[in-house]
Order: sequence, then structure tokens, then C-alpha cells
Amino acid sequence: MRVKNRLLNFGDNIIYQDDDFFAFSLDSVLLANFVTIKYSDKRIIDLCSGNAPIPMLLTFKTNAKIYGIELQKEVFELGLDSIKENNMLDKINFICDDVVNSDTLFSSGYFDVVTCNPPYFKYIDTSYVNDNSVKTIARHEIKLNLEQLIVKSNYLLKNHGTFAFVHRPDRFLEILYLLKKYNFEPKRIRFVYSKKNGNSNMILVESIKNGKSGGLKILSPLFVHKDDGSYCDEIRDMFGSDDNVAK
Amino acid sequence: MRVKNRLLNFGDNIIYQDDDFFAFSLDSVLLANFVTIKYSDKRIIDLCSGNAPIPMLLTFKTNAKIYGIELQKEVFELGLDSIKENNMLDKINFICDDVVNSDTLFSSGYFDVVTCNPPYFKYIDTSYVNDNSVKTIARHEIKLNLEQLIVKSNYLLKNHGTFAFVHRPDRFLEILYLLKKYNFEPKRIRFVYSKKNGNSNMILVESIKNGKSGGLKILSPLFVHKDDGSYCDEIRDMFGSDDNVAK
Repeated sequence: MRVKNRLLNFGDNIIYQDDDFFAFSLDSVLLANFVTIKYSDKRIIDLCSGNAPIPMLLTFKTNAKIYGIELQKEVFELGLDSIKENNMLDKINFICDDVVNSDTLFSSGYFDVVTCNPPYFKYIDTSYVNDNSVKTIARHEIKLNLEQLIVKSNYLLKNHGTFAFVHRPDRFLEILYLLKKYNFEPKRIRFVYSKKNGNSNMILVESIKNGKSGGLKILSPLFVHKDDGSYCDEIRDMFGSDDNVAK
Repeated sequence: MRVKNRLLNFGDNIIYQDDDFFAFSLDSVLLANFVTIKYSDKRIIDLCSGNAPIPMLLTFKTNAKIYGIELQKEVFELGLDSIKENNMLDKINFICDDVVNSDTLFSSGYFDVVTCNPPYFKYIDTSYVNDNSVKTIARHEIKLNLEQLIVKSNYLLKNHGTFAFVHRPDRFLEILYLLKKYNFEPKRIRFVYSKKNGNSNMILVESIKNGKSGGLKILSPLFVHKDDGSYCDEIRDMFGSDDNVAK
């Protein structure tokens, strides 16, 4: 069912989502908040954009031209409707296509920044996969796996461009090995924890294409919940108000 | 100057140190606390033992036979005197030798667990090096570099043995690439932060020799100081009392 949520933190803007597919997630808010965008950055692309939360949130952080690409038509249309309703059509170029095709859409090195909240889970025949195929494709590496994502991001980025994404810690080592394989140098990593006394359940990684080795910073940890279950101040600040905090 | 400190957390035990060389450090306490020792582990070796804080602290965590190896005679003797005074000679076999020679001292696969608080800094000709050579060797990779440490640990450990060490985050990527190169699979990583709102300044890494890939846990972050500069509860607990907390 299509529902309308306020676009977090930014006044009267809205975001459409369909709870048959998936809810607009914390992951995207954290990534939009995390990524470093320089004043000189002119073009940004968000891959696997879903219903476009990251492109929309980035409009409040930069004047760069923002592109988004989403494969699944049902989800893409939610995003496009939100972009229209928020009067962001002049800022966001939202494209319904496969990231795998991105080298036919753009010339190499066209972008200064690539962001992505990709499918997290490896797809293997024995995987539990949700029978809703829209959800399955958004969550499992059916159409795009981690290595393909890194290869395409490398193609899209200019030399020394910024590649930032969110993922799960159980893929962390694989992520680092693949970034190295394709000449990305990780520069900023932030671990996200649901609560103080548990293992990390989300990671934010920012790398530079052909970056000089060294200088990695492990940023301060980000806690989502306080001991009493309420949201931590940093999360509340990102979401603007308690009503906005994603459930 | 030789001074006598109480061996933290453990009653009347003492540890000798010489403040011309280096003080018994937080790093060693954190590593002794962090490393997983199984009931079935029979032999443990601590490399680059310094004045033996890790072997001594481990006697309170396990009944396994503990070995320590320290190259520098001045520091070794402080450790040996502490071990004697604490009546730990039956538990700790403390050896003055070069880790590089460890394959002439022990047969391959002799140990269940290897721990190490190694020299952190790369040695390059232009490095600032302290003119006190004991300190310099303890801190800079003059006698043993990271790759040699990993190679020797691989030799010393049995198949599926545990390798735990402490290091600096700016070497983190190099650490992971070298662990992979020598068939260590990282399983537990903990980031240490001096305070809540800063980057990590220390890492604890535990790997399994020839471990199955996957299953990495990024443990809850460890903060050393509270906002007011006092030590966090977890640190106080490790040290037993405020008087004991390393300055």
C-alpha cells in the first residue's frame, strides 16, 4: 500500500513508500548524512536508489546535480512521484535502469561522487528469499552483486572521486578486499551499533578512487538506540523530530 | 629508573617497570582482557612481551602454560624479576630472544594461542626515533615488522589456533591484507576510542589460523575516557581500582 511520509528533517517535503515493498530505511538517512560532498563536486550519482531517499536528502547538502538510478519500475515510480511533489525535478535526474547498464548511460569518469545503499545479502539458491520479488531484488544480490557495484562505481567516478556506501559488517572483509582489487582506497569508516552493548550491525565506508594509501580514519561509533530503547541524540538530529524517526 | 607498580586488578602482585624505557601500558591490559582463551588451550605465547604484563595478566585467565619472549635484555630482566616476585615461575616460561628466531626455539604448531603488543610504527630512515634505543626498538619496526610478526605467528600456531594482537587503526588495512595473505581469518575486531567524539586510536584483532571465511564480529566500541576525562567503567573494572589506572 502506498503511504506518504514526510521527508525527514526537511520541513514539508514528503517521500512516498509502499509498505508492500519496503520502508524508507535508516540506512539511507545515515549514508546521506555520512558522505563527504565537496563544494567543487558537480555531479553525484546514487545507485540502487529505491524510492529515492538518498537523492532527495542530498539536495539539502549540495547544489551539485544529483542522479539516481533504480531498476524496479514500481519503486522507481514512488521515487519519481516524491521528487515531483517536492519540486526537485530540476535538481534530481532520476532514471529507471539497471546499474549494470550504467556504462552505456554515462561516459567514464562523469561523476565526482557515487553513493549506494545496495542489496546486502548474497544470493544463493538455498537463500531464504522473500516471495515478493520487488523486495527480494532490493535485498539480495540478484541483479547486482558487490563486485559489480564496485566495478561500475569505478567506471562512473573521475580520478580521486568519492565512493560512499552502507553495508553489513559480515561483508566487511570482502568489501575491503574488493575495494583494494579495484583501486579504491578506504579513507573513512564508521561503524553503526543498534545499542551500546552489542556488535555493529551496519557500516559506512567512504573510499577514494586511486587514492593514495594510508590515512584511514575509523570515525566515532554511531549508536542508534539508548539503553531505554529511545533514539540517540545524533539520530534524532538527523531525523529532525521524533515523529520522523523511522520505525 | 626502576619503579614497582601493583599488577593491576590482582591483589598484591607487582610489576616492575623502568620509566627510562616505557611504562606498562593500557594496550597490554586491553589485549589480555580481549583475547579468547578456551578451556582446552594448553600453551600460549606472548611475543614482544616487554616487561611481561600480558603473560602475568593471562595467568589469572587460564591454567594453560604461558610463554613470553622479549628481545631486549634490560626490559626482559624487569619482567623476569616481576614474574619471580609474583611466584609465577611455574606458570610462565619467560625467554630472552628474538621473535625472528622463534622457529628455532619451538616446533611448528606448538601453540594454541599467540598474543602480541608489537612495535606500532614503521621504521623508515626519516622516522623520528627516540634516542633511547630500548624505547625505539619497542616502538618502531626495527627488529620485527608486521609481516614478520604474522609469518612467525602462523608458524607457531596449530591449525585453527588463535592469534590476537593490538595495533593502530592507521595500519588497519595493511593488517587485514597481511592476515589474508598468511591465511588468518579475522573473527573479532574491537575498536578502542580515547573518548566518545573522536576517531579510534587503537584496535584489537583476533584471527583464526586457516579459519573458515565469514563470521566476523565488530564488537561494541571500547571508550577509555568519559566526557569529564575520568576513566570509563569498563576500564576501571579491568584495572580493579582507580589507583591502578595507567596514567
